[in-house]
Amino acid sequence: MDNVFEIGLLLDFYGQLLTQRQQEILDLHYNNDFSLGEIAQQLEITRQGVFDNIKRGKASLNNLEKKLGLVEKFSEQREKAQKVLKYITEINVSELTQSDIDYLKKIEDGVKEIINSF
Amino acid sequence: MDNVFEIGLLLDFYGQLLTQRQQEILDLHYNNDFSLGEIAQQLEITRQGVFDNIKRGKASLNNLEKKLGLVEKFSEQREKAQKVLKYITEINVSELTQSDIDYLKKIEDGVKEIINSF
Repeated sequence: MDNVFEIGLLLDFYGQLLTQRQQEILDLHYNNDFSLGEIAQQLEITRQGVFDNIKRGKASLNNLEKKLGLVEKFSEQREKAQKVLKYITEINVSELTQSDIDYLKKIEDGVKEIINSF
Repeated sequence: MDNVFEIGLLLDFYGQLLTQRQQEILDLHYNNDFSLGEIAQQLEITRQGVFDNIKRGKASLNNLEKKLGLVEKFSEQREKAQKVLKYITEINVSELTQSDIDYLKKIEDGVKEIINSF
């Protein structure tokens, strides 16, 4: 995984296993869109130091996902929940009793909660 | 976390980050119900060696969960899905059109898939 969104996800999952410095730098770069130069200035380290931390941090994150696969597992769950949500919208509410409409709403809210808590 | 079921879950999630030996021993003990003595005999190591590996392996697993919290996150998702499944069974199918019954079945299957893939 190498794009910004994917690295952001890996950081969410495994960031706590990186060094403090790697976490800090990857968070600034991938979640807050700081350039390497800006990070170097902010942390008062060299641009090369920033680059090395990003490189090593990313390698660790990718290695963790390769071993544990939990981002993929979560993503699959999310896709399943999104498919369920699509089916819910297909149900013709106009033919339902009020009680069933209420349950359907609870089902929809529950599935949305699953999707949004990823 | 210290009971057999919980250690089993932690092993599923984080086992790949343990040493090969720890993985092997914790798997035999927690997933296959081997006693420490049986593991010692099988692997031709001392009972104390088995004990130490279990102790260190468990400490690593608990530490990983403390840092990452992914077992807890998954468990929460699962509980949400189980709640949704309960709402689905509350819907009065006898009043639904066949098309809605079919969608409800797809919704139920989808939610069960989410629950079972944990």
